[in-house]
Amino acid sequence: MTYWLNGCLRDSGEPAIPADDRGLLLGDGLYETLLVEDGQPVRIEAHLARLRRGAAVLGLPLPDLDFSAAMVTILAANGLTEGSLRLTVTRGSGPRGIAPPLDTRPTVMIAAAPATPPPPPARCIVATRTRRNEHSPLASIKSLNGLDSILARIEAGERGADDAILLNTAGRIAEATAANVFVALDGRLVTPPVADGALPGVRRAEILARGAGEASLTPDDLRRAEALFLTSSLAVRPVCRIDGRELAIDTGLRWQGLMEFRSDRA
Amino acid sequence: MTYWLNGCLRDSGEPAIPADDRGLLLGDGLYETLLVEDGQPVRIEAHLARLRRGAAVLGLPLPDLDFSAAMVTILAANGLTEGSLRLTVTRGSGPRGIAPPLDTRPTVMIAAAPATPPPPPARCIVATRTRRNEHSPLASIKSLNGLDSILARIEAGERGADDAILLNTAGRIAEATAANVFVALDGRLVTPPVADGALPGVRRAEILARGAGEASLTPDDLRRAEALFLTSSLAVRPVCRIDGRELAIDTGLRWQGLMEFRSDRA
Repeated sequence: MTYWLNGCLRDSGEPAIPADDRGLLLGDGLYETLLVEDGQPVRIEAHLARLRRGAAVLGLPLPDLDFSAAMVTILAANGLTEGSLRLTVTRGSGPRGIAPPLDTRPTVMIAAAPATPPPPPARCIVATRTRRNEHSPLASIKSLNGLDSILARIEAGERGADDAILLNTAGRIAEATAANVFVALDGRLVTPPVADGALPGVRRAEILARGAGEASLTPDDLRRAEALFLTSSLAVRPVCRIDGRELAIDTGLRWQGLMEFRSDRA
Repeated sequence: MTYWLNGCLRDSGEPAIPADDRGLLLGDGLYETLLVEDGQPVRIEAHLARLRRGAAVLGLPLPDLDFSAAMVTILAANGLTEGSLRLTVTRGSGPRGIAPPLDTRPTVMIAAAPATPPPPPARCIVATRTRRNEHSPLASIKSLNGLDSILARIEAGERGADDAILLNTAGRIAEATAANVFVALDGRLVTPPVADGALPGVRRAEILARGAGEASLTPDDLRRAEALFLTSSLAVRPVCRIDGRELAIDTGLRWQGLMEFRSDRA
């Protein structure tokens, strides 16, 4: 595959990033993952708005770049019309140490991936080895600090599951490792608030706008849920098992109207 | 400068890392910073032991490599006898997504830097914008997820300080952005326990072994401290101001015996 790096097209796998890039050394950066349909990135304005909010939190000056045109260029270079894009922005190279350099030249990468078949319903666990930190502004931006999610995903695999749902430090439900969680409970479809450590997902915002609600949730709520869904920009994935308890997938079908996304894309 | 990358010597600044390295995309990796004296990395066994503990937490298979010999090689290549080394290990390249690849080939980088003059005593603040997550195993390993520290360091700069001390999610003192904190309080020298979110620093362990103690500390304790020190593998730095309150540096001199490190290095 060919990807975009700071205005040039490069072959993936080819060495490209200097070893002093702060994305590599400190996870100092942001990313967005976008769905691609009919050759176009979906909900691009919402993704770029979140990127800008993240950049403001990190004090990371975004380059003056037509991200949309760059995305279309990299899709065309790979002959892709269906799939996904990952936009990554790091703070670029810097001297040794934590303090950001005075003269920041961010690294911008855009990589495309072909569509994959929809995954089967997910077997989930509630992660026990780590917690999401709702006291950090990082919880509400999509940063390159992915290790808590990675630890939870490893735990899921070791416990025979596909994904893990992370609690926050107060024991409330936050989100899955790369998706928001929607819970059908007492006849309502609800998702944890951002204040509980949920990433403000682009698809999450769509579902809320169509009538779902926000509610602080506990592991007990998951245990008595009628249906569970993992939502990301790429997919809505029903959950078929949570911590060993089976969930009837067809129970979730009544929520399909709220969960639908692709039909009304920008 | 020349650095080590997976067994080869490379020029820094030269593109070297593929864009799909998980260190770059997700902060999926570890690092160690070592003091170099007389051409030798100091306390190398303690650093490698911490690296191995971190690799076990992340499920990251370390390569079978003589790290010590590699470090000496890179020091010699740069003609350096005094300064520092940074050893970075990432989970290497992987496919899209959070889940670690089944076949992991880690990326190993070792970079050297010349000695810098000792910094002046530090003006510190207690960070208000973010908290360190003592509920995550990441708090006790030296991972590439550095953004909470970066946010706190940016806040320090904006508030006219050199460094920031982070609280944990319960409001206890955890550590500074790249150093442990030692506090002279009621005639004792104490530092927060690892359970409060302090990184188990190599120099910290030395100072504890020489007679300092561990204690859970609050911001109030900092306000009534007789002396404060920031300790890292590279330096012991007295604190001259905390949240606007001046600290007499000479008061800290009585603790110099406990804080001394270089004279008894391995």
